[in-house]
Amino acid sequence: MKKLAVIAFGGNALLRSGQKGTYKEQMQNVTETCEALLPFLKRDYNLVIGHGNGPQVGNVMLQHEAGNQMFSVPDLPMDFCVAETQGLIGFMIEMGFDKVFVKEGIQRNVVTLVTQVVVDKDDPMFQNPTKPVGPYYTKEEAEKFAAESGEVYKEDPKGRGWRKVVASPKPIAIENIGIVKRLADEGNIVVTVGGGGIPVVEKNGCLCGVEAVIDKDLASALTAINIGADEFYILTDVPQVYINFRKENEQALGKITVAEAKKYLAEGHFTEGSMAPKMRAAIRFVEATGRQAVITDAKCLADPNCGTRIIA
Amino acid sequence: MKKLAVIAFGGNALLRSGQKGTYKEQMQNVTETCEALLPFLKRDYNLVIGHGNGPQVGNVMLQHEAGNQMFSVPDLPMDFCVAETQGLIGFMIEMGFDKVFVKEGIQRNVVTLVTQVVVDKDDPMFQNPTKPVGPYYTKEEAEKFAAESGEVYKEDPKGRGWRKVVASPKPIAIENIGIVKRLADEGNIVVTVGGGGIPVVEKNGCLCGVEAVIDKDLASALTAINIGADEFYILTDVPQVYINFRKENEQALGKITVAEAKKYLAEGHFTEGSMAPKMRAAIRFVEATGRQAVITDAKCLADPNCGTRIIA
Repeated sequence: MKKLAVIAFGGNALLRSGQKGTYKEQMQNVTETCEALLPFLKRDYNLVIGHGNGPQVGNVMLQHEAGNQMFSVPDLPMDFCVAETQGLIGFMIEMGFDKVFVKEGIQRNVVTLVTQVVVDKDDPMFQNPTKPVGPYYTKEEAEKFAAESGEVYKEDPKGRGWRKVVASPKPIAIENIGIVKRLADEGNIVVTVGGGGIPVVEKNGCLCGVEAVIDKDLASALTAINIGADEFYILTDVPQVYINFRKENEQALGKITVAEAKKYLAEGHFTEGSMAPKMRAAIRFVEATGRQAVITDAKCLADPNCGTRIIA
Repeated sequence: MKKLAVIAFGGNALLRSGQKGTYKEQMQNVTETCEALLPFLKRDYNLVIGHGNGPQVGNVMLQHEAGNQMFSVPDLPMDFCVAETQGLIGFMIEMGFDKVFVKEGIQRNVVTLVTQVVVDKDDPMFQNPTKPVGPYYTKEEAEKFAAESGEVYKEDPKGRGWRKVVASPKPIAIENIGIVKRLADEGNIVVTVGGGGIPVVEKNGCLCGVEAVIDKDLASALTAINIGADEFYILTDVPQVYINFRKENEQALGKITVAEAKKYLAEGHFTEGSMAPKMRAAIRFVEATGRQAVITDAKCLADPNCGTRIIA
């Protein structure tokens, strides 16, 4: 049996901080990210890719806002915007892999599934939306939109204006997960849960889209659990996770147990919105499977003992 | 063996002429279209859906243009815009079917694949781009963009301004077609070749996106041929195809042979940009398979002898 790995990487791996997001920039970045996964291909792993979409869905929401103002094109809700980025980023990843395959003489196939991810409509996070999305507005605009729509707007902590905030509920089921597993087991590289998945809730027996953002690491962890992945990788921009980060007693973490990871998390070593959710996703995978999760930089993947490895 | 049908419908079935394209309008339309396919579900057909994206990709291109002007978000090429609409429309179709399934107590699964469709980089259509896409510009703007980018702009025949025109090359291969077939044979409703597929050409051994629009009926016909579909349906807004349309001797066509269809086409009975490409796609399927293609209105599908039926 070939090893099956789920690899999660952020939308920032494709549209980097400081870049505008031209297609040339994004194609360059995505190709580099696919190249970084070569060690898995050379070791003949089966692969599932879960990717983020932060910068891309931000751009799509700005485009919707601008299209509405300039051309009266109705802007679509968050879940539709996520669906758009799944098509967009899936296509870019497919082209990125194709370039790597041709260069390296690798025969593999990539398939991208549009993926809904179910969340609980009673998830407490819906009572406390915290994830800022879309354009910045003035206080007056934000108050007007909030009154019209019932949406929640909050002031940006860096003073850039007011933004809509949406909930970040926990993923509870991945649609078409059986198909993801089978296609991956057959050797296809499967791209799924893009942007954490299109958030849907059950309503009168149907699944309906909902304005929310699902954490892509948690959605990827659930994917990894549900397809019985042997290994789960979360790519970030540092080779290892640190405790006492940027203090005198800063320490990079190599192999740690789930118990240690939970202790460090409780002690507040990891930043919310950055390393903390990655660590929670890693813990979720390891607790559910007893197998190992790895948090590391894409560049380090050539070393099988790379990164911070969370074990049972 | 269950029957396998490919059903192609236009983006206009989801965003109708005169509508703005709010998500409520589009969800209402898509649900009605899915309901119209109930006769296939009740007869236990396996189904593949190929859909258009004309109005949606038009909106996406306007949003990209506006996002660039208002927020400096780089606009992305046509192929990326098509990829976005595949995610968007696939998600809407999945939700539309889900509503119908719940209402009717049907247990079926829907899966949407992001789909690249290969065209020949030497297709003669690239020398003569004719398909207008995106926003209208003034003559001066169009000339400036054409000089900067090498793109081709043409004046709108109705005097609304100048628009970019792109090629509409013939589809020659559907990526992941084997997966489409297998998933459909297993009973999944497969959504693929959205908007005619993301147009790609082979370049140095890789598949790369190209600015073009593939006719969704031709792409759906090729899908139907390559998966060995038993029947191919092209949905439109009239129950049957006419010859001598709107003349005294107007005649609705019931069952006709490929030879008759070709004769009528050569005689100019069918409008370019409307019924002519549908008839060509139907002919392509029937000639390749010897099986029947049907052009009709979604509302007529309950009658197994509906529409204009093209036979060998």
